[in-house]
Amino acid sequence: MPKMPIPFGDDVVAFDIGEGKLAILKTDMLVAKTDVPEGMSLWQAARKAVVMNVSDFAAKGVQPQAVLVSLGLPKGFREKDIEEIGNGLNAGAREYGAYILGGDTAEASDFLISLFVFGIGEKSKVILRSGAKPGDIVAVTGCFGKTAAGLKILLSHSHASGKIREELVNSVLMPQARLKEGLLLSRSGAVSAAIDSSDGLAWSLHEIAKASGVGFVISHVPVAEEAEAFAKANRLDPLHLALYGGEEYELVLTLKPTLWRRAEAMVKQAGGELLQIGKTVSEQQITMLFKGKRRVIKPIGYEHFRNT
Amino acid sequence: MPKMPIPFGDDVVAFDIGEGKLAILKTDMLVAKTDVPEGMSLWQAARKAVVMNVSDFAAKGVQPQAVLVSLGLPKGFREKDIEEIGNGLNAGAREYGAYILGGDTAEASDFLISLFVFGIGEKSKVILRSGAKPGDIVAVTGCFGKTAAGLKILLSHSHASGKIREELVNSVLMPQARLKEGLLLSRSGAVSAAIDSSDGLAWSLHEIAKASGVGFVISHVPVAEEAEAFAKANRLDPLHLALYGGEEYELVLTLKPTLWRRAEAMVKQAGGELLQIGKTVSEQQITMLFKGKRRVIKPIGYEHFRNT
Repeated sequence: MPKMPIPFGDDVVAFDIGEGKLAILKTDMLVAKTDVPEGMSLWQAARKAVVMNVSDFAAKGVQPQAVLVSLGLPKGFREKDIEEIGNGLNAGAREYGAYILGGDTAEASDFLISLFVFGIGEKSKVILRSGAKPGDIVAVTGCFGKTAAGLKILLSHSHASGKIREELVNSVLMPQARLKEGLLLSRSGAVSAAIDSSDGLAWSLHEIAKASGVGFVISHVPVAEEAEAFAKANRLDPLHLALYGGEEYELVLTLKPTLWRRAEAMVKQAGGELLQIGKTVSEQQITMLFKGKRRVIKPIGYEHFRNT
Repeated sequence: MPKMPIPFGDDVVAFDIGEGKLAILKTDMLVAKTDVPEGMSLWQAARKAVVMNVSDFAAKGVQPQAVLVSLGLPKGFREKDIEEIGNGLNAGAREYGAYILGGDTAEASDFLISLFVFGIGEKSKVILRSGAKPGDIVAVTGCFGKTAAGLKILLSHSHASGKIREELVNSVLMPQARLKEGLLLSRSGAVSAAIDSSDGLAWSLHEIAKASGVGFVISHVPVAEEAEAFAKANRLDPLHLALYGGEEYELVLTLKPTLWRRAEAMVKQAGGELLQIGKTVSEQQITMLFKGKRRVIKPIGYEHFRNT
């Protein structure tokens, strides 16, 4: 077995190619019946398949370069459907500076897209899940809760209207990976650990905690305005939407306190944001102060839905 | 678009990583209902998925190093099934000096295995489909027809018995990629073009012809002894089995005549064989002398079967 520069269970696989460089490899399969909600077009589904993978590269701070595709196509698919899928894949790749370089198609019962993404990282700069140290600042690259609300609108037809509905649904149909932020932050030298929040904020915090052998005290969960409004209108707990939602592609990071200001400024200058949400502690538990009480954040992850 | 060191439509994708090196990337998806015949175990199917991909690396003369897996698993699959699949993948990878380094699973309607294989090739040594020149010798790494016969036994229950049946069925269940031969031949400098014969010998010849802008005069198609016997017993044309069968993983190559002896000796010394089957010509047609008549070899490819 070759030495694994990035441990098993991390978001990507790395292969040492010498001279301080790592080949970064990632595969993720999008299966329509669990990953493509009603109302999402083929173009959007294909683009999302790319975003899912790019997001893991963002968390490592590595530029994705080449993308290969294996398409599973059910019998009814036509030429124009395949073209639409191809266009969505290309659009997603080009948004993030990567190229679709090849692949194959096979007849399958499900519509599914299996992507293979390749990039090269510098060994000394690739960010792992396992580097968080007590005292490190916990931060995220944006507000949470929009995709959880958007999925509720698409899947269980929860109520929302006008601009808010549009914004929430759009967060599901046109997700964005935080690649720009990830690349900048890896260069900053400030980040000790990172992951994306595709399985939900709570789950992501637990993954870093587990890999790093630390805990977190969360002081503030930034909930998106639209998610707040949606929660209020549908009598839901906005914090629940933000913590246990999923298909949200923010980065969850720990940063060295001494380099915090520098990292924050770098991200801000590039048009992004870096929001402090808590502190890393040695006690291996994740807690949050909420209405005066210390509440434990459980390792509950986002479960894939199923169109039935 | 980055420059493509290996043109679109070749068996693998290459990405220039500088200093004369190429990252070689390949994806291929095995879908049980079209690629796994009755009688093939999960372990064998998983191993075959690896062999399919390794075979394309063999044709390029590149060592496959890292393998990532996306598994689509139907609902009924149990823990022990998944373990069997994992063991088959590992066995296949280890046979060829590669490692399964990661992947993911998703629920799907079909059992399917999507593999991504990564290796590094030297830019000057990677073998393309497009380098064949008139005068080059056409050669293969073994005899043909066994898998076509084996598939007929498994799928349409054609008759065969004893050792012959075993050998033919085994060629389907336990295919071998000619990686050793491919690596040696790329080092020999003798090969001008190569492809594997997974879509059948006739199809492979046409692919090289098309990519290189040449034709071939085939003087001899080596048919495996067991395939000859099977054809006789079942009143089939052995040449048809050899030319139009598929799922056969020999290499089909063109070689510079001046280096032929050297290449042949290298392969022989390593326990393999290199069989001359014809000559490259400038006329873009593939013909064969058969019972005194010049016969055209048509671009008929192997069609995937379907278990119904």
